[in-house]
Amino acid sequence: MATVPSVSYSITVRLEVPAGGKAVSLLTHAVENAGGVVTALDVTNAGHEKLRIDVTCAAKDADHVQAIVDSLGAVEGVAIHKVSDRTFLMHLGGKIEMQSKVPLRNRDELSMAYTPGVARVSLAIARNPEDARRLTIKRNSVAVVTDGSAVLGLGNIGPAAALPVMEGKAALFKRFAGIDAWPICLDTQDVDEIVATVRAIAPGFGGINLEDISAPRCFEVERRLRELLDIPVFHDDQHGTAICVLAALTNALKVVGKELSEVRIAMAGAGAAGTAVLRLLMAAGARNVVVCDYRGAVHLGRDDLDDSLRWIAEHTNSEGYGGDLRGAVKGADVFIGVSAPGILTGDDVAAMAKDAVVFALANPEPEVSPDDAREHAAVVATGRSDYPNQINNVLAFPGVFRGLLDAQADGVTPEMLLAAARALAAVVTSEELGPNYIIPSVFHPDVANAVAAAVRESAGGKARGFTEA
Amino acid sequence: MATVPSVSYSITVRLEVPAGGKAVSLLTHAVENAGGVVTALDVTNAGHEKLRIDVTCAAKDADHVQAIVDSLGAVEGVAIHKVSDRTFLMHLGGKIEMQSKVPLRNRDELSMAYTPGVARVSLAIARNPEDARRLTIKRNSVAVVTDGSAVLGLGNIGPAAALPVMEGKAALFKRFAGIDAWPICLDTQDVDEIVATVRAIAPGFGGINLEDISAPRCFEVERRLRELLDIPVFHDDQHGTAICVLAALTNALKVVGKELSEVRIAMAGAGAAGTAVLRLLMAAGARNVVVCDYRGAVHLGRDDLDDSLRWIAEHTNSEGYGGDLRGAVKGADVFIGVSAPGILTGDDVAAMAKDAVVFALANPEPEVSPDDAREHAAVVATGRSDYPNQINNVLAFPGVFRGLLDAQADGVTPEMLLAAARALAAVVTSEELGPNYIIPSVFHPDVANAVAAAVRESAGGKARGFTEA
Repeated sequence: MATVPSVSYSITVRLEVPAGGKAVSLLTHAVENAGGVVTALDVTNAGHEKLRIDVTCAAKDADHVQAIVDSLGAVEGVAIHKVSDRTFLMHLGGKIEMQSKVPLRNRDELSMAYTPGVARVSLAIARNPEDARRLTIKRNSVAVVTDGSAVLGLGNIGPAAALPVMEGKAALFKRFAGIDAWPICLDTQDVDEIVATVRAIAPGFGGINLEDISAPRCFEVERRLRELLDIPVFHDDQHGTAICVLAALTNALKVVGKELSEVRIAMAGAGAAGTAVLRLLMAAGARNVVVCDYRGAVHLGRDDLDDSLRWIAEHTNSEGYGGDLRGAVKGADVFIGVSAPGILTGDDVAAMAKDAVVFALANPEPEVSPDDAREHAAVVATGRSDYPNQINNVLAFPGVFRGLLDAQADGVTPEMLLAAARALAAVVTSEELGPNYIIPSVFHPDVANAVAAAVRESAGGKARGFTEA
Repeated sequence: MATVPSVSYSITVRLEVPAGGKAVSLLTHAVENAGGVVTALDVTNAGHEKLRIDVTCAAKDADHVQAIVDSLGAVEGVAIHKVSDRTFLMHLGGKIEMQSKVPLRNRDELSMAYTPGVARVSLAIARNPEDARRLTIKRNSVAVVTDGSAVLGLGNIGPAAALPVMEGKAALFKRFAGIDAWPICLDTQDVDEIVATVRAIAPGFGGINLEDISAPRCFEVERRLRELLDIPVFHDDQHGTAICVLAALTNALKVVGKELSEVRIAMAGAGAAGTAVLRLLMAAGARNVVVCDYRGAVHLGRDDLDDSLRWIAEHTNSEGYGGDLRGAVKGADVFIGVSAPGILTGDDVAAMAKDAVVFALANPEPEVSPDDAREHAAVVATGRSDYPNQINNVLAFPGVFRGLLDAQADGVTPEMLLAAARALAAVVTSEELGPNYIIPSVFHPDVANAVAAAVRESAGGKARGFTEA
């Protein structure tokens, strides 16, 4: 999959070499000759005759791992003992845990955290249910809900296989916004059942983050849950992506000196992400957009329009363009792809308007080679971390939920999404802004706080901090 | 509610006294005169003229708190500033949190815990779903599920008000067995909806702990979930109680030199706990039992028998006794109450057989005053921590689930419950055994491991430890 060795495919090879020989010095060369990158070399046992060494290196894929191991094994005197995959090692037993915030060392502490003391807290909440946001984990908890139908780029792999992704998401919630998220992987892909289940489990959570649910079911699931629940429901694949794209585009257009309301935008992808990006761009003022899916431009003359595509056809492509993506991109100021790998070439980018902006967000392989795109476009962004301008939802969802929870918001509004996008764009100062820096790094320390503050403010008078009992 | 001051109703009174006077020495007296117990007295600010002091003390109830505060306020020169309830302070923001077990300090770590590295782990689980028990939190996670219909002794207070109790339960799971439990409070009390919801969320959990769901719905919920799911389903109010009662009774009968198969047992309570206790006692060999509910003895002649009561009537009370509890207790060797406060007197206990065993487990107020019962019975146990022989579910559920998770069990069998009870009873050695020590303390370090080992062994060949990737 990857074209260069990546730490995400990192292995540790435990091997033995003769203590006196020069095998050690040959190990690094062996890895490099096979195209791998050594990231660590630890002697874990030094005997008189043998040294035991752990060689850690990054590889491209499974075949590459085998090639590296073969290369190491071919070094004279080397005996391979065990090959460990660091990513799998990291996942053993799961990536998250539950921790008690209160001590339970003795009977007194037990009697306050559990019976009989807890009864008074329960009665207080029974009298005033809003107190649950003050006296329980509901204050800070988000359910990360998936049905496993559209996991990463892997497709419909089901709820159990989705769990490592949801655990990772929960870890990101904590890392970037101090939020206590828990994965809920659903053994159903039926819209009614998903809605009923999430509605039923909602009392213990302060927000619902829908994740990796395929379109068009995700639209109905979100819409119905928003009607039913008094806590925010946010489908990250839709709105997280939309916030990041709008923020990045806001800054990209500053770089090229164009206005959102004036530019012609060609989009590839009319799924969950594409539809949400479109809606937020239009809420922000975009007026001239053509959206293409795998059948070409979406327009009112097509006979395959479901509710979602019909909405797109009614609100975009006013000229009724009926051609393919390539034709839509020609002369456009902006291309935004949330679709499939390699559907455009450098020539297509060259045919765009002057100072073109290209967001090729398909992962891990973009709609157009970033290297080719950079030859012809003024600003290029991708979803990848090995190019500048990585558009990554981690920039949005932690801050969004931090703001929603702090405001004790009962829902998500388009204004909140716009505010989040504006705040995210503003993290890049005018001095920093440039073709290779239109969006901050996920590790930029201001991102989550800036987004959270904007969402909290947009949630308005609802903002309430902690108050003591 | 409580008759003596309890730390579960502990307050901290912040007040000021003149620095030169003798008010400080009077504070303790003031609390004691009002019947409170001072547990701490901290001078938090010492000025020239004033001292600021935090007086922490245990009270009986809300009225008693007011009486103590009034008594403190009446001390000359004292100004009361603030009264804080320590139990409520402990609950602010919730008692549990989610923690990441993996570091996310830089891009390399992100790329292993989340995309793109996590994709390989997801694909591995998609190919072999059993790997979820190795590579995800399912290895060690339990959902603590309630509908809020029978919370502690508080009744049907709903899911939000139940949340502090479920958080406490989750904290106990971690404290005593290292299990990562998360509360799931359901916004429905419909059996079909509960079953559908729990079935839907099951993929992310290694076990389901049902909690505080009222009878008779709890029986059907548990039965149907056990049929549907390939992970253990355990209603703690039923089986946790049953394990503890059987363990305690095993040891109590040793103390008085009687056999389970020979004794006559009178039970009060035919709800969730009572029914499960009865079934486990019979599985262990009890043969002569009469169960009473608020209408008197359960027998086949009654016209109000639902499925659960009918089962009881068919399997107990072979003489068809149709009287009340008092009559059933007369001459009985054992009384087990899981019912209501104050339904028996010391005289009733006096009318039992010689060397009677009395388990009065209604909480916080037992079926008969423990002091009165101890005058006439050989062994007395309650659910209270302020008397010997506290029968507390914390002795059972952590170890039971530890064993189930370690064995990767797909269900719970009666044999496992019996094994757990035997193991729990055996924690009390024959040297230690006596009328005031038939069951170990919840803080006894061997309890969870002993119970877990017994359950794991009973789960048989399924026992599998960690294996590396």
